[in-house]
Amino acid sequence: MKSIFPKILKSNQIITKNIEKYNVDWMNKFHGKAQTILLPSNTTDVSNILKTCNSNKIPIHIQGGNTGLVGGAVASNAEVLISMERLNKIKNFCDKRGVIHCQSGCILQTLDEHVNEKGWLMPLDLGAKGSCQIGGNIATNAGGIRFYKYGSLHQNVLGMKVVLPNGDIYNDTQGFYKNNTGYHIKNLMIGAEGTLGVVTECQLKLQKSKPSIKGMLFSLNNLEQLSKLIELSTNTLQDFISAFELMDKKSLILHQKHFSNLPISIGNFNVLIETQFTDDDYHQSVLDKFFENCMENELIEDGTVTNNETQLNQLWSIREGITENLSKEPKSLYKFDISIKLNDIHTLQQKLKDYDTYFFGHVLDENIHLNILNDGSNDQIENIVYNLVNELNGSISAEHGIGIMKKKYLHQYDTKNQIQLLKDIKKTFDPNNILNPGLITN
Amino acid sequence: MKSIFPKILKSNQIITKNIEKYNVDWMNKFHGKAQTILLPSNTTDVSNILKTCNSNKIPIHIQGGNTGLVGGAVASNAEVLISMERLNKIKNFCDKRGVIHCQSGCILQTLDEHVNEKGWLMPLDLGAKGSCQIGGNIATNAGGIRFYKYGSLHQNVLGMKVVLPNGDIYNDTQGFYKNNTGYHIKNLMIGAEGTLGVVTECQLKLQKSKPSIKGMLFSLNNLEQLSKLIELSTNTLQDFISAFELMDKKSLILHQKHFSNLPISIGNFNVLIETQFTDDDYHQSVLDKFFENCMENELIEDGTVTNNETQLNQLWSIREGITENLSKEPKSLYKFDISIKLNDIHTLQQKLKDYDTYFFGHVLDENIHLNILNDGSNDQIENIVYNLVNELNGSISAEHGIGIMKKKYLHQYDTKNQIQLLKDIKKTFDPNNILNPGLITN
Repeated sequence: MKSIFPKILKSNQIITKNIEKYNVDWMNKFHGKAQTILLPSNTTDVSNILKTCNSNKIPIHIQGGNTGLVGGAVASNAEVLISMERLNKIKNFCDKRGVIHCQSGCILQTLDEHVNEKGWLMPLDLGAKGSCQIGGNIATNAGGIRFYKYGSLHQNVLGMKVVLPNGDIYNDTQGFYKNNTGYHIKNLMIGAEGTLGVVTECQLKLQKSKPSIKGMLFSLNNLEQLSKLIELSTNTLQDFISAFELMDKKSLILHQKHFSNLPISIGNFNVLIETQFTDDDYHQSVLDKFFENCMENELIEDGTVTNNETQLNQLWSIREGITENLSKEPKSLYKFDISIKLNDIHTLQQKLKDYDTYFFGHVLDENIHLNILNDGSNDQIENIVYNLVNELNGSISAEHGIGIMKKKYLHQYDTKNQIQLLKDIKKTFDPNNILNPGLITN
Repeated sequence: MKSIFPKILKSNQIITKNIEKYNVDWMNKFHGKAQTILLPSNTTDVSNILKTCNSNKIPIHIQGGNTGLVGGAVASNAEVLISMERLNKIKNFCDKRGVIHCQSGCILQTLDEHVNEKGWLMPLDLGAKGSCQIGGNIATNAGGIRFYKYGSLHQNVLGMKVVLPNGDIYNDTQGFYKNNTGYHIKNLMIGAEGTLGVVTECQLKLQKSKPSIKGMLFSLNNLEQLSKLIELSTNTLQDFISAFELMDKKSLILHQKHFSNLPISIGNFNVLIETQFTDDDYHQSVLDKFFENCMENELIEDGTVTNNETQLNQLWSIREGITENLSKEPKSLYKFDISIKLNDIHTLQQKLKDYDTYFFGHVLDENIHLNILNDGSNDQIENIVYNLVNELNGSISAEHGIGIMKKKYLHQYDTKNQIQLLKDIKKTFDPNNILNPGLITN
C-alpha cells in the first residue's frame, strides 16, 4: 500500500511518523488506526488519491479540523487518512457580492478574519472556530450560534467542488444564490459526514457585519418565563437577535466556582441575548424598552444590558466557558446535542434528576447541549438519554452528526426502510465502501 | 390498467372523463397524454398507487398546481397522472413555534392566509401563489420575491413525508430547525421535480409578519447606478428589504400601454424595493434618509416612496403585471429564468439587441426573468439564449427547474459525469423509472 501513494503525491505529502495527533480526537475519546497520513493540496491530489484507493479497494478516512464530537474525524476503520490541512487557500473573495470561494481545509476563523476587513462576516460561528475547517463544517452541517439569524449551511453554501469516491470531480461552483439545474448534490453532501464524497472547495454567502452589537444577560425562574421571553424577543427583537443562548443554574454555578462572580443573580434558567443593528442609538433605545418590558411583565428575575464590547465579550466568555469548566471536573463528561421542544426540557430534567446534568445551548433553535458528569465510564448514560430523547420525539443529533458514536441509536428511531435508503445512497456513490467507512450507517 | 386502481382507491378518486385541464399547462405550451387521473387524499393512497405502479411498471406523473413553466407538471410520458389537489389539509399550525404542517397539495396562498391571522407569513411568495401548491414549490425549489429576506426552501422546509417510487414511506416529520441524523433526504427531494419521490406532507418554518410595510420605486439610467443602488441598499437597508425587483424600460413602457401612467419617469432600469419593519416611525425615517442619499449621490433619476398600502399594491401591480402584459402581445412569448452576474446583464442585452427582450426579476438574487417576444415559432431563440447564458457562466434555471424543456441544455453545460451521477441517483430511488418519466435527465 505504501508503494502506491508516492506515484501520485510528493514525498512531503505522505507521512508515516509522528502521526499520533491524527489518531485521536480532541476529547481523547475516539482513537484511529491510521498508519499513513496523506496531505493533498488541491482537488487533483484528492481525485488521484480516491481513484487509486477505489481501484485498489483501500478504505480511506477524511479529517478536517478534528474538532468533532461523535468520532467522525478519526480513522477507526482505515489505515489511510487524508488530512485536509493543506487545502487552505482562499481562491476568491468577491467583496461586492459577499461571496467567498475557498478550499475546504480553510479554518473557519481565518475565513472570518479575511472577510471582516471588508465589512463582511461568515454566516457560521461556533466555539471551535479557531481550529475547525469549513469542509468539516459542511460535512457535519454545523449550526452554531448564528443559526437563528443567518440560517443553515443548506442556505449559505452556494457552491462546491466534490471528489466522488471513484475520483470523479463533481463541479458545482457557479456560486449563484439560485440554481435549479438537476438534483441538489450540494445539499446532499451537506451533513453526509464525508461518506459520499470529499468536498475540496466551497463558496459561501457572507453576511454584512453590523456597526452596533450588544448583549443582555437575564436570569429566569422557570420555563414559563423562558417561553414568554422567547415570545417577546421574537416579536419585538426579530430583526436584531444574532444569538440567544440558554444556560441552566448549574452551568453558571460552575462558572462562579472557576471564575469571578456574575453580573446577575443566577436563576434556574439564564439567557444571553446578543443583538446587532446598523444604527447604535436606535438599537440602544429598542433594548432599553425591551428590558423595561421584561421587568414590567415579570419575565425575568434579574438582568443586565452591556454598554460596550468588553462587557459583551465577558458575557460570551460565560457561555463559551461552560465546556471548559465541565472538563475541569474530575468526573467523566458525556456530551449530548439534541433538538427538543421547549416544553419538553422540564420533562427531560425531571427524568434525569438523578444525574449531574447541565443544560445549555441554542434554545431559540430548540437545540440543547446537554452535558452530564458521571463517575467512571458508564455507557448506559447514552442509552438512557437517547431513549428519553426518542420518547420525547426529539432529535438525537441537532448539529454534531452521527459519526461512529450514535449509529446504534440512529437505528433505534429511524424506521427500517429509512436506514435502507441511506445505505442505498451510500452504495450508489461509493460501491466499494472506501470512503469514511464505519460512519453513519456503515 | 384501468382495473388496477379501483382496488386501491374509491371510485370518485379515479377520473377518466373531462380530463383536458390536466393535460395542458397554463401557458398552453406543453401537452400531456394522461388518460387516467388519480386523486389520492392522503399518504397511504399515494403509497398504494406507487406500490401498484411499481409492481406493474406503470409510468406515473405527479401534478401539483400546474403552474410550472418548463413542462414538468403535465404527463408527456405517462398515461396515468396523480393530481395532488385533494391532499389539501392543514394538519397542524403551531402558532407558538411558527411552524405549519400540511399536506403538500395545499395552495400557497391558502396557507399564507391561514397563518396570517396569527401574525405569521409563509416564507415563500410568488406570482402563482393563488394556484400553485406547496408540494410543487418544494419539487421545483421555488424562490420567489421573498428569497432575499427569508431564504430558500432548503432553509425553510423543516420536515416532510415522502412516498418513494416503490411505495415505501419516508417519514421525516419531527420538524426541528436542526436535525443531523443521516443524509438529508429532505434536501435532495427539494428541487428534484418529483422524480425521486412524492412529497405528501411538509412542515415549514414561518416568518413573523411586520406591522410596517413600505415600497419605493426608482428609475435609473445604467448598470453602474444599479450596482451602486444595490450596494447602498444592502448596506443601509439590510434589515428592512423584503423584495428588490428590477424592471427594464420596455417592461414599463408595456405597462403604460396597457394601463395608466407611472408615478415616476421610466428609466433604462427601474427598481421596486419593498421594506418591512416592526416600528413604523423609525422605518419611515430610514427610508426618507435612504431616498435623500440616493438623490444626493445621483444613484437614481427619479423615485417615489409609498405612503400607504394602496400605493404599495399599485407598485406591485406594475411588477406583477409584466407577464400578463406580455401575454397580451400578438407575438409568441419565450420565458427564460436565469441566474446571471449583475455586470453580465449589459452583455446579454447587447448580444440580444436584435430581439424584442424584456429583463425583469429578482435582481438582488441575480435572478432575471428574461422574456422575449418573437414572430411565429422559433425554437432557435432558446438555443441562442441558453448558449449565451452558458458562455457568461450563468445558470439556465434559477428557480423554474429543468422539466422537459431544458433537458438538452442541461447536457450542454454540465459535464458528462455530473449527468451520470444524476442518473445514478434516479436509478437508486426509481429503478423501474415509473415516477415522472421524462423529466430532468430521463
